[in-house]
Amino acid sequence: MSEILVVGSVGYDSISTPSGHKDGIIGGSANYFSLGASKYSKVNVVGVVGDDYKDADKELLTSRGIDLKGLQQMPGETFKWSGKYENDMNEAITLETHLNVFEKFNPIIPESYRDSKYVFLANIDPVLQKEVLTQVNNPKLTGLDTMNFWIQSKKEDLVSMIKSVDVLLINEGEARELTGKYNGIAAIKDLLALGPKAVVMKRGEYGFVLYCENKYFILPAFPIDNVVDPTGAGDTFAGGFFGYLSKIDDELGFEHYKQACVHGCLLASFTVQDFGIQPLLDLSWTDLEKRQSEYRSVIQ
Amino acid sequence: MSEILVVGSVGYDSISTPSGHKDGIIGGSANYFSLGASKYSKVNVVGVVGDDYKDADKELLTSRGIDLKGLQQMPGETFKWSGKYENDMNEAITLETHLNVFEKFNPIIPESYRDSKYVFLANIDPVLQKEVLTQVNNPKLTGLDTMNFWIQSKKEDLVSMIKSVDVLLINEGEARELTGKYNGIAAIKDLLALGPKAVVMKRGEYGFVLYCENKYFILPAFPIDNVVDPTGAGDTFAGGFFGYLSKIDDELGFEHYKQACVHGCLLASFTVQDFGIQPLLDLSWTDLEKRQSEYRSVIQ
Repeated sequence: MSEILVVGSVGYDSISTPSGHKDGIIGGSANYFSLGASKYSKVNVVGVVGDDYKDADKELLTSRGIDLKGLQQMPGETFKWSGKYENDMNEAITLETHLNVFEKFNPIIPESYRDSKYVFLANIDPVLQKEVLTQVNNPKLTGLDTMNFWIQSKKEDLVSMIKSVDVLLINEGEARELTGKYNGIAAIKDLLALGPKAVVMKRGEYGFVLYCENKYFILPAFPIDNVVDPTGAGDTFAGGFFGYLSKIDDELGFEHYKQACVHGCLLASFTVQDFGIQPLLDLSWTDLEKRQSEYRSVIQ
Repeated sequence: MSEILVVGSVGYDSISTPSGHKDGIIGGSANYFSLGASKYSKVNVVGVVGDDYKDADKELLTSRGIDLKGLQQMPGETFKWSGKYENDMNEAITLETHLNVFEKFNPIIPESYRDSKYVFLANIDPVLQKEVLTQVNNPKLTGLDTMNFWIQSKKEDLVSMIKSVDVLLINEGEARELTGKYNGIAAIKDLLALGPKAVVMKRGEYGFVLYCENKYFILPAFPIDNVVDPTGAGDTFAGGFFGYLSKIDDELGFEHYKQACVHGCLLASFTVQDFGIQPLLDLSWTDLEKRQSEYRSVIQ
């Protein structure tokens, strides 16, 4: 088992879905990622919150062994996102994004984090992702996610970041937006050509495509007939992906990436079953193992 | 091996996709289905064409052992459909549907067809599907497909037909339209509740969901980075599904349906690679076996 470092957003979300509405619940890519990855390994979080971020919300993470030494608290408001889902649960409609303290954020990686072998640059400003990457010592695996907000506002910085990581994890809609290719399979090839060794395209209810070493690995999602809130599913996927790889901490390549995708996909299948991070807080290894076995019977 | 009877449309299509435009090419659900199914078994076609339907277009089918005794030729124009695909190749946008001779069609099943053990009611007016079903003697397996046109115009007849078949094959968009459930997994349960023993939901580039005996079988499509024309992919899927089952002609149930879905899915992956029926005409067993082996490596 090796340690994982994640930099990403930590904030409060307001979310409307056909199942209901929640205001000001814990969200952010780093929260979902670390709750997912912490099922497997120790996670070190880099991020920033404002002075309105509640101690109890930090304790939810630290009680699960997640290290928040790198989570700065700055004067001002915490990052806030509000969005809604209509029928298509694969597509979040952003209503408002308030970067708040993220606008002045200068990531400083604590000394004890710098040797983390697994580094995930979750969805934040690609300029900040770069600052983090330059401060870590020779990681074994680096990965990156992004979203339409950065594709539209900082495409050049983003493309340069994609070049410098091992694995790009991206959802299908964003892969389309970034490449201009509607066909996901065509888009994934263009993304690989940007430089990473592997691309994982997340397809929501349709699962994922892994493309690496000229090979595909494609599977559907676990069937869920009541998706309550898909927010954070992609970050949870990444958490399971990195969590699995850091836990086995073996030589990296296609075969391990395949298993890592399955872990990410199954972990994410829990996230969508209720609002926010709640399903990840409740999740036990027994639940996960049960679902693994159910999933096997669905795809075999 | 047992014989398959299919009733469906036989006509001419005009199709625009991002890859180009084709005018007046051979189309119709029965054509795609029978070209697919004939790779496995003898297929008997019931349908109607007008006096403008070319003999050469019939010969394309008869030269592959497809029996057209049940294909009536009536005065008037052949069924014509025109449609386009924009970016989303999973969704055909119908421009025009001219039923033409189908409006006066009265299906008569030739004596030699009546003992066909496998009966597929491809996408045509559900009233005509019913007339066909009443003329066959105790089939071993019946299946049905439909499309938005009939969901909108003859929903009651359609629902009554769904009750009376063993397997409903339907694409995801139409499953949503018919059930009012956007979530495909929720929709499939509602469809099963209508009466069939199994439901196969076709998801285009995302593959399929089989639901039967309270069990799911879900797989993605074979990855194709250049989908030229998806028309007929669903009918080809049904052709592979029925073709496989009739060829093995074993006791029916979940395990065989799973294999049948894989055959349907792979056969359909060829159909989308060029306009119209051309890929099915060119397809050899060697091509199909090669793709089966490639597919295994993608999903395993």
